[in-house]
Amino acid sequence: MIAERMKPLMANNSAVRQMFEEGNNLRAKYGKENVFDFSLGNPDAPVPDEINQAIKDIVDETPVMELHGYMSNAGYEDVRETIACHLNKLHGTEFTKGNILMTVGAASALNVALKTILNPGEEVVVFAPYFLEYNWYIKNYDGVVVPCQTDENFMPDMGRLEACITEKTRAVLINSPHNPTGVVYSEEIIKGIAEVLDRKQKELGRTLFLIADEPYRELAYDGVEVPYVTKYYDNTFVVYSYSKSLSLPGERIGYLVVPPAMEDSEFVFETVTAVNRISGAVNAPAIQQKLIGRCVDSKVNLEYYDRNRKALYEGLTGCGFECVMPQGAFYLFVKSPVEDAAEFCQAAKKYNILMVNGASFMAPGYVRLAYCVSYETINNSMAGFKKLAEEYGL
Amino acid sequence: MIAERMKPLMANNSAVRQMFEEGNNLRAKYGKENVFDFSLGNPDAPVPDEINQAIKDIVDETPVMELHGYMSNAGYEDVRETIACHLNKLHGTEFTKGNILMTVGAASALNVALKTILNPGEEVVVFAPYFLEYNWYIKNYDGVVVPCQTDENFMPDMGRLEACITEKTRAVLINSPHNPTGVVYSEEIIKGIAEVLDRKQKELGRTLFLIADEPYRELAYDGVEVPYVTKYYDNTFVVYSYSKSLSLPGERIGYLVVPPAMEDSEFVFETVTAVNRISGAVNAPAIQQKLIGRCVDSKVNLEYYDRNRKALYEGLTGCGFECVMPQGAFYLFVKSPVEDAAEFCQAAKKYNILMVNGASFMAPGYVRLAYCVSYETINNSMAGFKKLAEEYGL
Repeated sequence: MIAERMKPLMANNSAVRQMFEEGNNLRAKYGKENVFDFSLGNPDAPVPDEINQAIKDIVDETPVMELHGYMSNAGYEDVRETIACHLNKLHGTEFTKGNILMTVGAASALNVALKTILNPGEEVVVFAPYFLEYNWYIKNYDGVVVPCQTDENFMPDMGRLEACITEKTRAVLINSPHNPTGVVYSEEIIKGIAEVLDRKQKELGRTLFLIADEPYRELAYDGVEVPYVTKYYDNTFVVYSYSKSLSLPGERIGYLVVPPAMEDSEFVFETVTAVNRISGAVNAPAIQQKLIGRCVDSKVNLEYYDRNRKALYEGLTGCGFECVMPQGAFYLFVKSPVEDAAEFCQAAKKYNILMVNGASFMAPGYVRLAYCVSYETINNSMAGFKKLAEEYGL
Repeated sequence: MIAERMKPLMANNSAVRQMFEEGNNLRAKYGKENVFDFSLGNPDAPVPDEINQAIKDIVDETPVMELHGYMSNAGYEDVRETIACHLNKLHGTEFTKGNILMTVGAASALNVALKTILNPGEEVVVFAPYFLEYNWYIKNYDGVVVPCQTDENFMPDMGRLEACITEKTRAVLINSPHNPTGVVYSEEIIKGIAEVLDRKQKELGRTLFLIADEPYRELAYDGVEVPYVTKYYDNTFVVYSYSKSLSLPGERIGYLVVPPAMEDSEFVFETVTAVNRISGAVNAPAIQQKLIGRCVDSKVNLEYYDRNRKALYEGLTGCGFECVMPQGAFYLFVKSPVEDAAEFCQAAKKYNILMVNGASFMAPGYVRLAYCVSYETINNSMAGFKKLAEEYGL
């Protein structure tokens, strides 16, 4: 009944569903408060207070046919201009509304960028570990994923990056702050990637794109700087979402930046706009666009996640587990005390602790813990982690 | 800079933009009220009063993390159940939430269905004239469009349909009420299509899908019945949108029906849900879903369009123009008085009348007039149409 190329999707889908059902079974058996589910990357910091008031104000103050009607496929011009000015103020960029395409979240922005640039068989280099949905997004346009292994701190290695770039390379996809490791790429790293791409672009005589997927940009701790990538490499697309910065993942609102310095920037912008139309989205949802126009400076309380980050990191390393201290996003990527991380995940279930096997991010030997959970969940899970550590002789 | 296969999209795009800019130039020169723009299919009947109140109530009454958070990729279960019950009440179907996938409008629903079923090179039969965006949607998944000419009343001809179905056919796509002709397919027509598909399905030993794209379902006049297609053919997808029924085109909310009688219905539903996830949408926007859950019985005032329909039909046929009286949607498809409809469109611009060449719908020799405009626009355009008719000796 379904297309041949959708069959691998469905094989994978049943594994994800199985994990989800296991969680539900545990909750039914032991009660929700006694299950420590670190498996879901579901933003749970409170939505900023001003958001819901803004929605009501928009409904009251906008002429109704303007509010719900069609707009340019790129989105409302005033909202795009507001976002451009916001980015310019923060990052010293020189964007206008002609550089901002409103999209149905980051996933849609990323799909639009990939559909715009990929010819069948062209390669996209992705630093591993990585968010495996990228595999589907790239395959959607007959692209080929080329994983590039990072170093022991999950940082890109320029020698390895260079070796991954071939005559078939079309783009390098980065994600910082990073899912699943929580690392943030420094300016030095971004400069290094830009240098390799600039050089290879000339050497190969073909355009190489850098795609910066930044849904976690606002979730950066300890005052760490998240460099704005268009300033380092001209042919950069920036993919952004408000799902995490405003805790609005269900509302599907984000944008794609086509910077003015990109080659043929205006034509590329026209193309991403047309691609947004034909790929099914047509345009980003209207109310959500207007909401961003009013709340462009809003952010969830970072302290909510930061407290969790510290508690979980300290708790786990205190038990003897090994992990890199994350500087961003809401994940901890922990080394499995045994080679087979699936065994470790299984053992944790005895204590009602749910984690995701790093193999799901192309990183066997690790597990991912999402700390977008209540602080109590973290504290209450510690007894289990201690027993788990003892079990493995840590 | 862009992928090879996006180049035809951009060539077409500049033609559309040119038409849009011509309209803007005329408005700038002669004033908005003196330009009679029948070129845009932009719903303009007033949004029902209860819609905006419902949005505010949803914001006030829904726990905030539930309102804006992630839900199943298929959409909120209660909303899907509400829609299923609504359809069952209207059409005597037996749907549950397991048959309703919430989508980012009809365009997204159609893309999800096509991605789910199409193998590269497989054919989709579409009755001409048709909405040319279907070409892009089908090409998105490497499908091949097979246009099937309708009769002089724009009705499918079963002999021609049968001749179009080959060993490569995967689906037949219908659209009733119809863009651009306004015709509605009778029960007899739907039964005829179902009979051909049933027989061909057995003969060829392969699954043939019927896809019913129904964004105009609620816009049907003179009490004409719009048959519910799943009752006539099991392997039917229904594509629906609230863009027209509630005048909410910017909000991007619709759904896809996978009926229980479809072969492997549950597995197909799981697949469309996963496809909705990976194609970029992830899920339909949350507030809009909740809105439909509360306003499932709402509808725009049909009288708004009906008055326009009658005025435009009577006005034009009174001048001597020929067209089929439309029973649905908000379009009139008029025979060009000269073979070259482009010449006719050009001549109309002298009177500040904007229409779309039927060639844009695979129907040379016709023009489309969208009557989703104010009643005044129709009345005020008549002097120009009369002169145009005289010019062509009607």
